[in-house]
Amino acid sequence: MKTLSLDTSELRDDGQTVAADLGCSSHPLEVFFHPKSIAIVGASERTGSPGQVITTNLFGSIAPGIQVFAVNPTRKSIFEHPAFARVADVPAQIDLAIIVTPAATVPDIISECVEAGVRGAIVISAGFRESGAAGKELELEIAQRIRGTQLRMIGPNCIGAMNPLTGLNATFARKAALPGSVAFISQSGALCTAILDWSLSEVIGFSAFVSVGSMLDVGWGDLIDYLGNDPNTESIVIYMESIGDAPRFLAAAREVALRKPIIVVKAGRTEAAAKAAASHTGSMTGSDAVLDAAFRRAGVLRVDWIGDLFHIAEALSKQPRPKGRRLAIVTNAGGPGVLAADALIAGGGELAQLSSESIKTLDEILPPHWSHGNPIDILADASEATFERAIELALKDEGSDAVLAITAPLVAARPITMARNIAKYAALGKPLIASFMGGGDVSDADDFMSRGGITTFAFPDDAARVFNYMWTFGENLKTLESAEQSLLHPEPRRNHSLLIDNVRNEGRTIFSEIESKQLLSAYGIPVVQTEAAHSIEEAIRVARRIGFPVVVKLLSKTITHKSEIGGVKLNLQSEDDVCIAYNEIRKAVLALGNAANFDGVSVQSMARQDGFELILGSSNDPQFGPVILFGAGGIFAEVMKDTVLELPPLSTTLARRMIEQTHIWQALKGARGKKPIDATALELLLVQFSQLVIDQPWIAEIDINPLIATSEGCLALDARVVLHDPSISFENLPRPAMLSGIVYEHSSQ
Amino acid sequence: MKTLSLDTSELRDDGQTVAADLGCSSHPLEVFFHPKSIAIVGASERTGSPGQVITTNLFGSIAPGIQVFAVNPTRKSIFEHPAFARVADVPAQIDLAIIVTPAATVPDIISECVEAGVRGAIVISAGFRESGAAGKELELEIAQRIRGTQLRMIGPNCIGAMNPLTGLNATFARKAALPGSVAFISQSGALCTAILDWSLSEVIGFSAFVSVGSMLDVGWGDLIDYLGNDPNTESIVIYMESIGDAPRFLAAAREVALRKPIIVVKAGRTEAAAKAAASHTGSMTGSDAVLDAAFRRAGVLRVDWIGDLFHIAEALSKQPRPKGRRLAIVTNAGGPGVLAADALIAGGGELAQLSSESIKTLDEILPPHWSHGNPIDILADASEATFERAIELALKDEGSDAVLAITAPLVAARPITMARNIAKYAALGKPLIASFMGGGDVSDADDFMSRGGITTFAFPDDAARVFNYMWTFGENLKTLESAEQSLLHPEPRRNHSLLIDNVRNEGRTIFSEIESKQLLSAYGIPVVQTEAAHSIEEAIRVARRIGFPVVVKLLSKTITHKSEIGGVKLNLQSEDDVCIAYNEIRKAVLALGNAANFDGVSVQSMARQDGFELILGSSNDPQFGPVILFGAGGIFAEVMKDTVLELPPLSTTLARRMIEQTHIWQALKGARGKKPIDATALELLLVQFSQLVIDQPWIAEIDINPLIATSEGCLALDARVVLHDPSISFENLPRPAMLSGIVYEHSSQ
Repeated sequence: MKTLSLDTSELRDDGQTVAADLGCSSHPLEVFFHPKSIAIVGASERTGSPGQVITTNLFGSIAPGIQVFAVNPTRKSIFEHPAFARVADVPAQIDLAIIVTPAATVPDIISECVEAGVRGAIVISAGFRESGAAGKELELEIAQRIRGTQLRMIGPNCIGAMNPLTGLNATFARKAALPGSVAFISQSGALCTAILDWSLSEVIGFSAFVSVGSMLDVGWGDLIDYLGNDPNTESIVIYMESIGDAPRFLAAAREVALRKPIIVVKAGRTEAAAKAAASHTGSMTGSDAVLDAAFRRAGVLRVDWIGDLFHIAEALSKQPRPKGRRLAIVTNAGGPGVLAADALIAGGGELAQLSSESIKTLDEILPPHWSHGNPIDILADASEATFERAIELALKDEGSDAVLAITAPLVAARPITMARNIAKYAALGKPLIASFMGGGDVSDADDFMSRGGITTFAFPDDAARVFNYMWTFGENLKTLESAEQSLLHPEPRRNHSLLIDNVRNEGRTIFSEIESKQLLSAYGIPVVQTEAAHSIEEAIRVARRIGFPVVVKLLSKTITHKSEIGGVKLNLQSEDDVCIAYNEIRKAVLALGNAANFDGVSVQSMARQDGFELILGSSNDPQFGPVILFGAGGIFAEVMKDTVLELPPLSTTLARRMIEQTHIWQALKGARGKKPIDATALELLLVQFSQLVIDQPWIAEIDINPLIATSEGCLALDARVVLHDPSISFENLPRPAMLSGIVYEHSSQ
Repeated sequence: MKTLSLDTSELRDDGQTVAADLGCSSHPLEVFFHPKSIAIVGASERTGSPGQVITTNLFGSIAPGIQVFAVNPTRKSIFEHPAFARVADVPAQIDLAIIVTPAATVPDIISECVEAGVRGAIVISAGFRESGAAGKELELEIAQRIRGTQLRMIGPNCIGAMNPLTGLNATFARKAALPGSVAFISQSGALCTAILDWSLSEVIGFSAFVSVGSMLDVGWGDLIDYLGNDPNTESIVIYMESIGDAPRFLAAAREVALRKPIIVVKAGRTEAAAKAAASHTGSMTGSDAVLDAAFRRAGVLRVDWIGDLFHIAEALSKQPRPKGRRLAIVTNAGGPGVLAADALIAGGGELAQLSSESIKTLDEILPPHWSHGNPIDILADASEATFERAIELALKDEGSDAVLAITAPLVAARPITMARNIAKYAALGKPLIASFMGGGDVSDADDFMSRGGITTFAFPDDAARVFNYMWTFGENLKTLESAEQSLLHPEPRRNHSLLIDNVRNEGRTIFSEIESKQLLSAYGIPVVQTEAAHSIEEAIRVARRIGFPVVVKLLSKTITHKSEIGGVKLNLQSEDDVCIAYNEIRKAVLALGNAANFDGVSVQSMARQDGFELILGSSNDPQFGPVILFGAGGIFAEVMKDTVLELPPLSTTLARRMIEQTHIWQALKGARGKKPIDATALELLLVQFSQLVIDQPWIAEIDINPLIATSEGCLALDARVVLHDPSISFENLPRPAMLSGIVYEHSSQ
């Protein structure tokens, strides 16, 4: 067998792995990209039908060694190939079935595939969840049929998948993608066809091209895991409408992002658009801000504009990734050079500092009033040769990580000659990107550069923005890697708490302020001394013991937002003040109409005024489970929105990253004569809070506001804890998405 | 004469005004766009030289009735036209001279033009300020030669100007722009050539196309004023590197923006890029944030990306302006429709609510699982006819202000047929914009739509973003108009102040805190009672009189940032506290090494703690003069950067707009049980502050921080005033740019 497989591998050059040949245990998704035998279920000759296009694609241009069979119970032959009634009738072992039959027939066909030992199915057919309840039922039926089998399924309601490296085109797109190193995965079939058509004009190549459809089985996590281990894929570009299985996505992305860029455009950023997306894909969507936090945590780069996804795909397919953020700009037009510098700097990039040797050489070849710096303005009357020389110098200068070439159509130099002159520098190991501005005068130059491996942009500021994406990716990962490595106690330590049991046993979900502080205290979070008082006399007694000035607040098991109804009285200086406060709070609650809301008051000492008011909280996202929020607190929590989200668990490094991402950090670290806060204590407090959140799945929400931070430490002044509805079973409580790591089967190589 | 001129106007159709024919007093810039006679000074036959290209352009394609003459002292003829040695030798009265001679010769040629009664000169020649000190000298020389004459000059260092409506191409660009209604003005000649080339491919037409060069004479103000009154110009699109004469720009833009959109891309947004721009254009650049405020105040729409300038120029040239912000999206591809909705909503636009009749009709023509709302997802298998019908319905629906048509290249419908089908709806009075995504499959459809008057975009989210620009313009103007109308006291009321005189007479520029508060008080701004104390005993006496708790602060004529050196002691409860505070402050100042910095302390009462800390200040911008800053104060002024800039004078409406633009406004207007502040008092305080700033040009900076705002009014707790350097003469003190309105000569029509 060994000899045979080596012979076979020598005979062809189609990117298939030796493991696949040998029949070794490979990644379960390998079958979609390297099948040896394919059945088209629903093969058709009807012009324009998906079945016909797929049949034509697969019989027309397949890699050597792949057998294709038509399955159609109503035909004897399709396009002169024999047609079989069922998958089981095909006289060969089928690896991959492409299913293009009416929705109602799919469950039975899936069962036939399972019985026939098929390992992969791509269901092109539409008419499932996107078309209503009956379709949803059919999906559940299919899910049931494949559960526990070795069959993996892409779709339904998709365009299919391509492996451009082997020429495999199992889609109903009429054209095949060019081979390359970018894997593209799209939840919109229409976008697949658009990006495919565009990629052919722009000469962009792909290592995989997948339309995932409804992701009933194979989802983001599987594909990212597979493509992360695919040696032919250097980057993964995703158009996403819904996250699907969030923990699987996170687990796969976290691992792969350390090696390969994962870039995502996610539709439905705004609420109204999310609603449109939901009606479109039939999927539920969660909070966009949480998604942002999850992408950041996993090292995934999110871009806002579909144009940027296209641009980045092009840049990644043609160019090496830059080693840093220093861009040299060579231009024959001053203004456009400045615009590019604007975009570069606004996005965190830097203008490369040229060496004095480079400057000296430029002084020799350029007129005296050239810009004498970067952007290198070689002036409007520069020749093609001068342009080439400047590009070469900028690329070879050790101060630059990449070069952007900008031209306007001027009298002195011909765009096509400039393009030809610089094309040879595209392979120097640094990215060379270009923006030859104009229309008809530059189109042949643009075309030449596209084919010559230079990434081109219509506008120079767009070029600089995409360069920023190119280096950002690498920088993000450095932070991520160290943050993840420093994670302590990533697992829940204990799963019950007497305090929580007590509240649940009373049939409540809302903790009183005093109970909330007890829970925080149990996790080492410092809280201000707070005592309950059920009468004016008791309140005065407590105040006297604590010492004036004091704060008196409503104690209620039902009302949680106390300040809104006047339930918080600050800075009470005397027993009289306490008495008045008690009466006012009681009156305010009674005015709401239910005396049962009033359980007395809590009395605590008035905190020092020179601390910073912060907020620390947790809530639950339908897709990612518990999410931690930190930022500027007090009244500013709501108006300044200076808060940061992160998924638990937190390490001290991650906690520090959260803290530093807020604006208020600029004040916390010491400003205008104020001492810096004890940041180490704050970091630890965040880690302890994260531990509380992951230990106690019954907690639905925690809100510590304000959390006072000073140079001497932190102190929680107010806190509220809310539990999940008691009707949820313990098993179904939301868990932290980061802790639901899954184990993938990897190729034995 | 009258009969003759009417005859002439009947004979031609070239856009010239009757006023020009009649020799009536017209706008001084009319001569650049409607000359009757042109001299090319430096006309040349040397292939590729600017002189040759201009000569060819002007002799080759001129409007009937325009005479062109070549001027070149070394030639008898140029391209078979007689050449004259000097402008004075030309046997006709010259309206416009195009000067393409070496820089050193230009001053004398300008003088010749003045003598010959020429009214306009376009100086193409380079070699002035951009090339160093000698060039700068030459510019000063030219400026002197034209001062007080009737000659107006565009340039130097420019490409020239075109009037595409008459065919006049007085530039050295090889191609002429298409006629249209957009005026384009660029400070970068290179960008002119790029946008020109691009406009020919995209079929964009212009009413004027001007490269302004160094703006030694004619600048933004003149051109905006002229084009604002030009009936052929519907919108003005500007690429700007420096603002030049800021008051002239503001005066012209404020007036014109009420009638026509003015859209600007300004290079040099970031500091490093601004430095590059400065070295490039030789101009000084001011703070970008102030420029933003000035644009906003003048109703000018600033865009960040050069691509958006191109897109907007296209949209404005082809489409009516939308009446509102409600966009209907028709798409055969769900995902791209959602992306467009995202961009629309993120930019403040709204998804149009379709009428129930439209929905009913769509229900009839679309498959049952269409989106049943907007975006109107007609699904992938929709035919060309269905697409057309949906576009027509969306355009005719009264709930929409514009329609965006999106397609992906799918099996069912041909892009070119869809383009043909919808082109007829481009003239229905609402904007129809399109994004047919893809490459080669859609290029003919794109081309067809471009020529058919539909604005096209490669990506649907870009289309939605540009739609947001289209309606934003109209909305901005409504606010602006009412704000300007409500301006009270726009003129300085008095130009001296005894307080200021006293400080200046002492040779100081820095007010003490007590002096600062006196000045504010004189303008009706409430300040906290503050008294000086020059000994511990005096401090205790004052504190006793004011009442505890008090604040004690350093009193110093030299140190202005008191808190940074520990010069502010808050919440002192007793005489002992005051004593300790006095000693600590004195010690801190002495530690700095100069006893003269210590003038004692100021004592004031401790303010109520339930107010909001705000900041109100003024500073001077090199281009716009005094600028007012308002926002969140205290420690948050620096970390939250929640501040807004505005140019004085302020009306109560403008003051309200400033206040409402801050984040803290969300808290000021009442939140979490807190009473709203007295916003009317705050508005008035801002107007009074603005009056102080415009009355007292000696003031360089004012800083009120914190300004406390409560439901009962406002109170300045701390203030500092700094004057301009005494060496500046009163006439040269910076004045508010908004008050330097200039009077333009208008056409007598």
